[in-house]
Amino acid sequence: MARKLRMGMIGGGTGSFIGDVHRKASSIDGMIELVCGAFSSSAEKSKASGKALYLPEDRCYGSFEEMILKEKELPEGDRMDFVSIVTPNHMHFAPAKLALEHGFHVVCDKPMTLTLDETMELETSVQKSGKIFALTHNYTGYAMVKQARAMVAKGDLGKIRKIQVQYLQGWLSTAVEQTGQKQASWRVDPAKSGIGGALGDIGTHAANLAEYITGLDIEELAADLGTFGEGRVLDDDGNLLLRMNNGAKGTMSISQIALGEENNLAIKVYGEKGSLEWQQENPNQLITHWLEDPVKVFTPNGNNLYEEALVVSRIPAGHPEGYLEAFATIYKNFATHVMAILNNETIEKPDYPTVKEGVRGMQFIYAAVESDKNNAAWVKI
Amino acid sequence: MARKLRMGMIGGGTGSFIGDVHRKASSIDGMIELVCGAFSSSAEKSKASGKALYLPEDRCYGSFEEMILKEKELPEGDRMDFVSIVTPNHMHFAPAKLALEHGFHVVCDKPMTLTLDETMELETSVQKSGKIFALTHNYTGYAMVKQARAMVAKGDLGKIRKIQVQYLQGWLSTAVEQTGQKQASWRVDPAKSGIGGALGDIGTHAANLAEYITGLDIEELAADLGTFGEGRVLDDDGNLLLRMNNGAKGTMSISQIALGEENNLAIKVYGEKGSLEWQQENPNQLITHWLEDPVKVFTPNGNNLYEEALVVSRIPAGHPEGYLEAFATIYKNFATHVMAILNNETIEKPDYPTVKEGVRGMQFIYAAVESDKNNAAWVKI
Amino acid sequence: MARKLRMGMIGGGTGSFIGDVHRKASSIDGMIELVCGAFSSSAEKSKASGKALYLPEDRCYGSFEEMILKEKELPEGDRMDFVSIVTPNHMHFAPAKLALEHGFHVVCDKPMTLTLDETMELETSVQKSGKIFALTHNYTGYAMVKQARAMVAKGDLGKIRKIQVQYLQGWLSTAVEQTGQKQASWRVDPAKSGIGGALGDIGTHAANLAEYITGLDIEELAADLGTFGEGRVLDDDGNLLLRMNNGAKGTMSISQIALGEENNLAIKVYGEKGSLEWQQENPNQLITHWLEDPVKVFTPNGNNLYEEALVVSRIPAGHPEGYLEAFATIYKNFATHVMAILNNETIEKPDYPTVKEGVRGMQFIYAAVESDKNNAAWVKI
Amino acid sequence: MARKLRMGMIGGGTGSFIGDVHRKASSIDGMIELVCGAFSSSAEKSKASGKALYLPEDRCYGSFEEMILKEKELPEGDRMDFVSIVTPNHMHFAPAKLALEHGFHVVCDKPMTLTLDETMELETSVQKSGKIFALTHNYTGYAMVKQARAMVAKGDLGKIRKIQVQYLQGWLSTAVEQTGQKQASWRVDPAKSGIGGALGDIGTHAANLAEYITGLDIEELAADLGTFGEGRVLDDDGNLLLRMNNGAKGTMSISQIALGEENNLAIKVYGEKGSLEWQQENPNQLITHWLEDPVKVFTPNGNNLYEEALVVSRIPAGHPEGYLEAFATIYKNFATHVMAILNNETIEKPDYPTVKEGVRGMQFIYAAVESDKNNAAWVKI
Repeated sequence: MARKLRMGMIGGGTGSFIGDVHRKASSIDGMIELVCGAFSSSAEKSKASGKALYLPEDRCYGSFEEMILKEKELPEGDRMDFVSIVTPNHMHFAPAKLALEHGFHVVCDKPMTLTLDETMELETSVQKSGKIFALTHNYTGYAMVKQARAMVAKGDLGKIRKIQVQYLQGWLSTAVEQTGQKQASWRVDPAKSGIGGALGDIGTHAANLAEYITGLDIEELAADLGTFGEGRVLDDDGNLLLRMNNGAKGTMSISQIALGEENNLAIKVYGEKGSLEWQQENPNQLITHWLEDPVKVFTPNGNNLYEEALVVSRIPAGHPEGYLEAFATIYKNFATHVMAILNNETIEKPDYPTVKEGVRGMQFIYAAVESDKNNAAWVKI
Repeated sequence: MARKLRMGMIGGGTGSFIGDVHRKASSIDGMIELVCGAFSSSAEKSKASGKALYLPEDRCYGSFEEMILKEKELPEGDRMDFVSIVTPNHMHFAPAKLALEHGFHVVCDKPMTLTLDETMELETSVQKSGKIFALTHNYTGYAMVKQARAMVAKGDLGKIRKIQVQYLQGWLSTAVEQTGQKQASWRVDPAKSGIGGALGDIGTHAANLAEYITGLDIEELAADLGTFGEGRVLDDDGNLLLRMNNGAKGTMSISQIALGEENNLAIKVYGEKGSLEWQQENPNQLITHWLEDPVKVFTPNGNNLYEEALVVSRIPAGHPEGYLEAFATIYKNFATHVMAILNNETIEKPDYPTVKEGVRGMQFIYAAVESDKNNAAWVKI
Repeated sequence: MARKLRMGMIGGGTGSFIGDVHRKASSIDGMIELVCGAFSSSAEKSKASGKALYLPEDRCYGSFEEMILKEKELPEGDRMDFVSIVTPNHMHFAPAKLALEHGFHVVCDKPMTLTLDETMELETSVQKSGKIFALTHNYTGYAMVKQARAMVAKGDLGKIRKIQVQYLQGWLSTAVEQTGQKQASWRVDPAKSGIGGALGDIGTHAANLAEYITGLDIEELAADLGTFGEGRVLDDDGNLLLRMNNGAKGTMSISQIALGEENNLAIKVYGEKGSLEWQQENPNQLITHWLEDPVKVFTPNGNNLYEEALVVSRIPAGHPEGYLEAFATIYKNFATHVMAILNNETIEKPDYPTVKEGVRGMQFIYAAVESDKNNAAWVKI
Repeated sequence: MARKLRMGMIGGGTGSFIGDVHRKASSIDGMIELVCGAFSSSAEKSKASGKALYLPEDRCYGSFEEMILKEKELPEGDRMDFVSIVTPNHMHFAPAKLALEHGFHVVCDKPMTLTLDETMELETSVQKSGKIFALTHNYTGYAMVKQARAMVAKGDLGKIRKIQVQYLQGWLSTAVEQTGQKQASWRVDPAKSGIGGALGDIGTHAANLAEYITGLDIEELAADLGTFGEGRVLDDDGNLLLRMNNGAKGTMSISQIALGEENNLAIKVYGEKGSLEWQQENPNQLITHWLEDPVKVFTPNGNNLYEEALVVSRIPAGHPEGYLEAFATIYKNFATHVMAILNNETIEKPDYPTVKEGVRGMQFIYAAVESDKNNAAWVKI
């Protein structure tokens, strides 16, 4: 490629949390430039946001429809290559579908859509379009998560027997949604969030991480959800039993009312020959245990790593990479794939979450809600 | 008291793990001396064990019955004051009952007995005897566990919403019971262990710790047990959902096949105003989180502790106390109570686990096994 | 500003470690774009590097002189705004001086120059030029370092009594410079590195961090340097005593032969009322101790932070920021200053390291080398 | 042996910190019983202390002279076997010498005596007496310290190049000695402490630990001592440069005014092939680094330990042992030696600190004080 990829953003106006994250993450590796955006459903706000991002006024659109249609008409040399959708859940489906139908690749925040029906329809859209679709399960971008996945895949841990996964936050411990906090407001609103609260927002990450690292599927689950925040209708807490498709068992604990927890996504995987543990808040170490050896701690660009971990580390050992870099790895791998397509090259096993992970995530949400309604009965995914 | 208390031990012959722990723990605070023992069902082995402990030969008995009866006949000035029962589970009931009936106080390892029936009968024995009975849920002896309990009791954390408790070990990851490992052999044998494997051995500790710290009861549970070790019949792994009697929810994860885990008993408790976490392998810190304050870490004899934690710390801050010291605290509080009785004094709220905790522990085991048989259906304790 | 700042890079061709870091760091906050470069002293390599960065061929120059002169001639609307110098130490002075003389602001890697003479001359150049000069003591960009500095400045810790600072690496434990490792080769070569080895490469960071956090000056030092690597002439290890200008005392330990250490920059500061500790490899927590309170741990965007820490955190608490983000903060604050100048605005106390810190760094190196030559006699800075 | 060893204690009356520690530590392994004591220079207080320890009144003496002389006259079957001296420094020499002269073995707290002259004289006494003398450098009793020493001795780390050792406390941050705090009062008084304050109290531990683990001698040192507490005459802080007898270099930092530090004795040792780090406050892990392998963490009774570490671990992996257990190991190894002597057996390389370590400790104090008086000039030990 003789140029960077051109990104158009949908959502993520000034003050947005995740839009800013996507912008920073997509810029780190120097492969992508933001060229246009429909940052808000208000044309005025969209333009103001674009201006603050140094975009030309005529590339700041008042709606995603306008952006997709107008960009489509631009000369190939100017036109955006893909859209990045960073809106609340209920605004994922329509822009993603439209973009695909107009020949644009898509990066989309998770969960994939508002409803499972939309998800299934979008899956079809992706297949029809021939375009690629990346879902930002960003935590799989960490080097030590790659190392963990590789260790399991290569059989280092032996057959997996037990999994503990948790994603704990405390920021909804009080009724912040009643204070006008924008991040909270839409997340507790079923019309914007879907049938899952914490389930969709963080539970899908936990489920995805467990499946990504172990290479196993959650076969069935039993979910006991909680709604502790006054006036809420969606779950803000959940305790789950898991059964994997190889006979392994486990627990999942998710919460947004776990007071004091910041962003505590963590996993432990126990096999017949070894085990591992990883925590997102301390992402640059992977602790492993062995039948005969002492505890071994792996670090990015440290000794004895698999290639899968080495390729995603940007800087020498001891120089911590964080959330944005892991997020950037999703964009980097997506961009590498898009560039290959533009160059008429093929890529073996592109490593980023796709529509397949999106479908599993929505199925996870639906299964958990159904289980909870039946007093934590087992439900197959 | 003008003298130390005199202890007679049942079980715990040479090579025993837990017998040695009880002896060391009971000696630390200088209130108790070992004066006799029925260390083995073989009179010869019992005498050999006693000799290695510098006991006179005539105080080393060939059976617990012999010990109880003969000691009973000794002059009051020589006779043991209490028995310490450190045998496998199936050998708790008979000696405890006999000791109580002959007027001896009892310290007994957990779980209380082999069956729930025995437990209920022993509860009656204790009540009839007027003697005191301490169950060595030793982990409640840690200073930071005392601090945790006091913080919850005083309302510092507000209403409790969520609990995560785990007790993870990996020493049964392979079939060590087939190698003649004595600790393993009886633990996987229902005739000696009862209906619970990991449930009885470590699950009861986890349940006890959760109830001790929160002051709540586990009201109902759903248990998905696992038996991963080849040829085993008892659970060596378990994943549980918990519902507490105040509406709080939680998970419990226990395992003896969590490869690499040593003795990882840990708990997190989340309330409306604060939260806390504690780990047995790093027992000298209590991490707390707050709505408005930064994370606060408490240490034994450090700043801002409650009296409940201060009284059990033996040495200055920064001088780590460990497993034996926590265990010793159970003995110390028990001994203090016995001395008070001997001095015709009364004690307000003696702080050690009693027959009440023993009953709850057995009920926990039975509820979990029943739930597991019904595909993890909810069972009330 | 209606546009991003335009950066020209000197050094940092393909395969460079620190050039890539500067590029990534400067892009994160979306305020700066790379528009040209003299990436190598070989015109061919420079063009190849530029191409890989998607730069137009005519902005890839064969020398820094060419770049500075040609860019100067470009219309203001195209011309670069500042240069970023990411070459080995011996190539800092000439391009920095030339850039300043031609009206370009400068970002320069540390230490400032090859010799103290050059440093003093460059200081004069900066003053004459009226341009701004940022030295990338990047570790001061971490949020928790800002918090630490603010806490000391506001008197929270009381008068500072004791400092421990260390910067430990192990990557020169073996003679990697003899294997053609590019990073190592120039660092052990006095012609490229100057009179200090580890002193210049990492010791200056340690000294800068200590002075930045405490607001104190190292008044005098006693240095016992080591050269452990076979065939080396420069120090690869150093142990120093420090005396600060307020009477505080301390130690500094630096090493590049501390086998197994990755990038272990760490500091402890003890005052009369409180103390703090921070580690670069775990940068998202600041541990503090107090006379009457328990240990308090601060985290980025967590509770109770000072504004100084809040303004540099980009993402919510628990989403770790790392080395690149801290580095980016230097660029961000520099860019904010440049933009203000371009907008004819003024900025109160711009917060990035300048030529002043560059001078102190070189004085530190010279003092330490002199002390070492005199068997670790005290030398004033 | 058919009986426990009989210990007589000098000092350590009610309320004493270190006397209580010695009693608890000596009792843990069931090899030693306290039979008599001169707990205080007041006969009345001595008797009261003895009574609280359940000792018969006639074995509670009013002075150490009385105890040694009267015990000497008791029949061999009753007489104490050794004395344990737990008084302030100025009261070590006289009782130790008298005990040795009357045929008693001696355990003595550190530093060995008040002055170097006394130390040299006591060394002679020990040699003349044929009795054994143990100095309680208790920190060498930790299992992970034994493992560290064994790893260095076996060459696992290769030639040692660099050492960092520190012993940091904060309890003298304020003038607690003016509040009547007994522990503080004598420690800041040269008449009772000797010429070193923190140097003698904790610096000797740090020096001993460094030499014990590395098997090297501190050949020379440069010391910059501090006296921060108002009204103090002895050092309460010190920063030292170290040169070992194999060419390794290092730093030592000690303090009792390092506010917030509890009992932070820690060491790092870097060799040509590996490195290790250990912290007393988290004593149950030994972190090691290697040229080619990932970080390995060793734990007591965990995988891959040397026999030297295994033999001192009392309980299974994951059951933390602490300060008292490490202290107990000194007593246990001392008692094992005494029992061997009583049984006319010999022991190969008894593993506890002796008069040799006592001499080096006093020489360390004197060298550091001399260096400090000469503005941190190098002084040979």
